Amino acid sequence: MTGRPKPGEFELIARHFAPLAAGHALAFDLTDDAALLQPEPDRDLVLTADAVVAGVHFLPDDAPDLIAAKLLRVNLSDLAAMGARPRGYLLTAAWPRETDEDWIAQFARGLAADQTEFGIAMLGGDTVATPGPLTFSLTAVGDVARGAVLRRNGAQHGDFVFVSGSIGDGALGLGVLRGEIGDLDAEAAAFLANRYHLPRPRLALGQALTGVANAALDISDGLVADLGHICEVSGVGAVIRSDDVPLSPAGAAVLDADPAWLATVLTGGDDYELLFTAPAARRPQIAALAERLDLPLTEIGEIAAGRGVKVIDPNGAPLRFAAAGYTHA
Amino acid sequence: MTGRPKPGEFELIARHFAPLAAGHALAFDLTDDAALLQPEPDRDLVLTADAVVAGVHFLPDDAPDLIAAKLLRVNLSDLAAMGARPRGYLLTAAWPRETDEDWIAQFARGLAADQTEFGIAMLGGDTVATPGPLTFSLTAVGDVARGAVLRRNGAQHGDFVFVSGSIGDGALGLGVLRGEIGDLDAEAAAFLANRYHLPRPRLALGQALTGVANAALDISDGLVADLGHICEVSGVGAVIRSDDVPLSPAGAAVLDADPAWLATVLTGGDDYELLFTAPAARRPQIAALAERLDLPLTEIGEIAAGRGVKVIDPNGAPLRFAAAGYTHA
Repeated sequence: MTGRPKPGEFELIARHFAPLAAGHALAFDLTDDAALLQPEPDRDLVLTADAVVAGVHFLPDDAPDLIAAKLLRVNLSDLAAMGARPRGYLLTAAWPRETDEDWIAQFARGLAADQTEFGIAMLGGDTVATPGPLTFSLTAVGDVARGAVLRRNGAQHGDFVFVSGSIGDGALGLGVLRGEIGDLDAEAAAFLANRYHLPRPRLALGQALTGVANAALDISDGLVADLGHICEVSGVGAVIRSDDVPLSPAGAAVLDADPAWLATVLTGGDDYELLFTAPAARRPQIAALAERLDLPLTEIGEIAAGRGVKVIDPNGAPLRFAAAGYTHA
Repeated sequence: MTGRPKPGEFELIARHFAPLAAGHALAFDLTDDAALLQPEPDRDLVLTADAVVAGVHFLPDDAPDLIAAKLLRVNLSDLAAMGARPRGYLLTAAWPRETDEDWIAQFARGLAADQTEFGIAMLGGDTVATPGPLTFSLTAVGDVARGAVLRRNGAQHGDFVFVSGSIGDGALGLGVLRGEIGDLDAEAAAFLANRYHLPRPRLALGQALTGVANAALDISDGLVADLGHICEVSGVGAVIRSDDVPLSPAGAAVLDADPAWLATVLTGGDDYELLFTAPAARRPQIAALAERLDLPLTEIGEIAAGRGVKVIDPNGAPLRFAAAGYTHA
């Protein structure tokens, strides 16, 4: 009874959001208290949630459709990391009173486009008013064959470390958007900014890695920190070779101009590529997978004794990363 | 990489929230990207989400454990309305930097107590920083036997309208907390305030109503508005008799002192009682259910021709509700 938007606002939002659930019978067109999801036999459900706040995770003048797509895709990326296939999502939104209808419409269009792209539907959600910044929370639901889920804690001695795609583009893209990276041609700058705004959840890869990878996650906090998460819960250490970390042509151009950006590439995050470990015997399968998915899968290091992640340069000398950059250890 | 709380804050929150997921193997102790849920054979999943904002849905000096419990319970109430059994939940929280540890600890204790009460676990979530007010979003997951889900759209001509418990306590409780209701003994005031702060999701009732009720929902927007929702999606009208709407002794005392509070009782919301319709043939079953659950189930009216909800007084005269109260039509 309190804090609900005025009826007019309700209708406004319903006009833009109800179509996102329509056509998916199990969301009951958002008219019921909750949505129904019929699990397929012998499949487990996978659930993940993320929140974003205006002024913190996105800027007021970012394109609303990209804000929507990024929020959805970071959650789909979590599903990809578990080897799951996406099924749908629930969205809650806290709107400031002054949010205009065009903004809401564009946000909903971003969701609609990605629903088509990924074959999913909105299953439900909630809309409230806030005196603070626009805040969204999204819960994504996927499924995976029973027992096939990919986890972080399976890395083993003898495993090698692989990443998909190119690393560092998202963090460098943020640098571009902040005007911190000069001397870059417009096409490369646009590529990096787009990689920051629009993650590509590696869903096909994640599903194909069940039974192949021993451990996996998606890189959101940064390559070094996220490999550290795998090591911590697996009780192992890891060594990665900085020179083997795959770069996009745009990322390589940034590093050519100023090698200090390497720290951002390795620790910046927002990659939404998959990081996984697998034994040597899986190399042919991984190579075939890269071919089939037309997605580079690059071996960048190996699981090692001890704890924590060591990054070595081409001479084998360890690099140490501080908050503001890196030094040779 | 942006907008994440500082590592110290992460650890603070992990310290209080990780135990909420521990012991539930499928949440992977919050160490993985997502949580796994194994559906039982021949059961469907039911999903619902709600958001709350400080200063809008709760006040900064409300007890944090009650804020947590209410957020969880309004979602469990949605599951109850669908006939579902709760299984777990995901929580996202946007914390202002100045949130103190005691507050977080008390909030987590509220969740922990209700996890025990309702036999559920935290399955995952996300923690972010916000420059705005404390904002929570909770997604609850339940399950229901395949095909047995209760929906809003099944009300039929010949159905009668029932409610559980007593109506109006939550909205009157808010009136008490706002100091708008005087002349009430302390015990009654405390009862109503507690009913506002701590909904009792009617989970056992909801599960028992599958196969009994033709339509159901939980009353959150107000008895009249919520019955209106059932009527709208069922394509029917309804008549309820104001005198038959069940009141608690405390609610009756408020109305005795000032009958104008009737409008709040019927339209205020925050009841979290179940409203359902069923044909006359189900009356004995419903009476037996009330007995078994030790919960009043009161017949307050019937499904009727036309559209919309009519409320009639003991003389059969229709009452009309305006935003600020009601008049005879």
